[in-house]
Amino acid sequence: MDFDNTERTELSELGEFGLIKHLTQYIVTEQESTIKGVGDDAAVIDNGNLQTVVSTDMLVEGVHFDLSYVPLKHLGYKSVVVNLSDIYAMNATPKQIVVSIAISSRFSLEAIEELYAGMMLACKKYNVDMVGGDTTSNLSGLVINITAIGAAEKEAIVYRNGAKEGNLLCVSGDLGGAYMGLQILEREKAVFKENPKIQPDLEGKDYIIERQLKPEARKDIIQILKDLDIQPTSLIDVSDGLSSEILHLCTQSKVGVELYEEKIPIDPLTFDTAREFNLDPTLCALSGGEDYELLFTVDLSHYEKLKNSMDISIIGHITNEAKGCLMVAKAGSVHELKAQGWNALMKG
Amino acid sequence: MDFDNTERTELSELGEFGLIKHLTQYIVTEQESTIKGVGDDAAVIDNGNLQTVVSTDMLVEGVHFDLSYVPLKHLGYKSVVVNLSDIYAMNATPKQIVVSIAISSRFSLEAIEELYAGMMLACKKYNVDMVGGDTTSNLSGLVINITAIGAAEKEAIVYRNGAKEGNLLCVSGDLGGAYMGLQILEREKAVFKENPKIQPDLEGKDYIIERQLKPEARKDIIQILKDLDIQPTSLIDVSDGLSSEILHLCTQSKVGVELYEEKIPIDPLTFDTAREFNLDPTLCALSGGEDYELLFTVDLSHYEKLKNSMDISIIGHITNEAKGCLMVAKAGSVHELKAQGWNALMKG
Repeated sequence: MDFDNTERTELSELGEFGLIKHLTQYIVTEQESTIKGVGDDAAVIDNGNLQTVVSTDMLVEGVHFDLSYVPLKHLGYKSVVVNLSDIYAMNATPKQIVVSIAISSRFSLEAIEELYAGMMLACKKYNVDMVGGDTTSNLSGLVINITAIGAAEKEAIVYRNGAKEGNLLCVSGDLGGAYMGLQILEREKAVFKENPKIQPDLEGKDYIIERQLKPEARKDIIQILKDLDIQPTSLIDVSDGLSSEILHLCTQSKVGVELYEEKIPIDPLTFDTAREFNLDPTLCALSGGEDYELLFTVDLSHYEKLKNSMDISIIGHITNEAKGCLMVAKAGSVHELKAQGWNALMKG
Repeated sequence: MDFDNTERTELSELGEFGLIKHLTQYIVTEQESTIKGVGDDAAVIDNGNLQTVVSTDMLVEGVHFDLSYVPLKHLGYKSVVVNLSDIYAMNATPKQIVVSIAISSRFSLEAIEELYAGMMLACKKYNVDMVGGDTTSNLSGLVINITAIGAAEKEAIVYRNGAKEGNLLCVSGDLGGAYMGLQILEREKAVFKENPKIQPDLEGKDYIIERQLKPEARKDIIQILKDLDIQPTSLIDVSDGLSSEILHLCTQSKVGVELYEEKIPIDPLTFDTAREFNLDPTLCALSGGEDYELLFTVDLSHYEKLKNSMDISIIGHITNEAKGCLMVAKAGSVHELKAQGWNALMKG
């Protein structure tokens, strides 16, 4: 079926961010309680002292997950975690989720129970309540939508738009692992399709496969920053790849950045696996996505507190807008940072 | 693809309510701020004085809507309204929504703009802000998920479980119209498929077609009750059909009911169209669904205030649990009320 419009603009011409930008350009918020609408990791709603933080995410079979290698329990777990990650990315604490699923008759009750078991496990681990949802049928695949609701003191909430010239750019954990885990899973699926007798060869790849199948939200980093008495000036989670997220922070904060390639944290297994696939490990970190690490900026005065952190890397610094968004490569050459994310790497 | 479970229970054996009941049986809420989890029109979250009310709904192409006769703008409008209806059904005021959509490349940008235009129109009419969402691709149809967030004073919120013996059972507007509108649209679609030269014959059916394509949430009824100084003892919106909703109120309130068939408000056009289709108009009201009227119980002392209301019908009274849920038919015979809703009437 098609729609008879005199004009027809293909969605592929815009890409995800272009579409969002286009659709949201006319949105005006009018409620006094709406502190922040579209454009950050989550919306912020005022309730007096405490503010409510709300984020939603939709996962579609065949687009975001492939059930031929993703166990349903892991899928349930991950679908919750990716939403909680958005709440932490506001420096808030997730408290509740509502879950909608559309399922075809292909799925048995036992399969859906597995999915829910994974969701409940994530709820338990992150101390979050499942408070509602909707369950409906679908003609073909599985669609999951989760809305996470968090709370924070008004002063604690960190937006994407507060980065200032001279700030340090920091990221938690390591990057590119989830993307390389996906490459391994896709390769083994292709081998299996060719010859179903060959068992998948995942040996030694546990870490990156877990990064893909069972990611964690960095609740601990929010706590570490609180313990160190550091309030980030801007904060975002790395769901679409480092470069895309850096550009979000810079655009919204109206600043430039200098990112040092040699400082980007990449796990040795991610590095070696990228090489095995003839991929540039840095590119995997920049564009791979799904790492769910936290990217943030802090005042330079916090340098001493962070410089020896095992779990936080200082990867660059904020410059002024006119200088642009740059990456200083290992060899010393300077490149403009470009967002690839969704468009370039969708479906591997 | 199938899942190798030793056990396999078909979802169709359970139905929607059975599935929800099964999946939610192990949910335990632990957050102090979770006042109400699953089991009502919306979840309730405490923020001190004001409480946050959250509801979510998923609409799936081919299951909930058919784009061969539903204009995208109407679809957008309706998808917002059905969510707001759940918030009003808590006696709360909707304030914000977050919207997720999954779309295939079959849709052009202009088509999605139409969908959003309808959503924005509903936001404007009901004074609600669109504060976030997710946009993703889908392999085939269109999937829309909306989460609505409302606010209310703690004392104002009305649950499903407060109906008391002797209460009056009331409903707003009229019932069965949305279902009969759907029958007309389905009939004209079938005629068109047979012979595309025949124009759809919708003459004189405006009211019931609008009930189906562009329903409204009963914000005005919430205001009327407030103006009359009536706090309902229980409240629910009629999305699945009157009998199903009455049974929800009775089960959760642990009471019985006596419903009078002759008191069920049915518009003459709904009545005549049902007859035209050889359907029992009462059955259409009881099981048709999608009316988005408000069903509620009030203390008997409010009888005088309500008896002459143009927009609220007193359709029965609450009895004790042992008496069961009964309908007194026009002829005087007494029948047990049964929920049909989703299972019986899905897809007409």
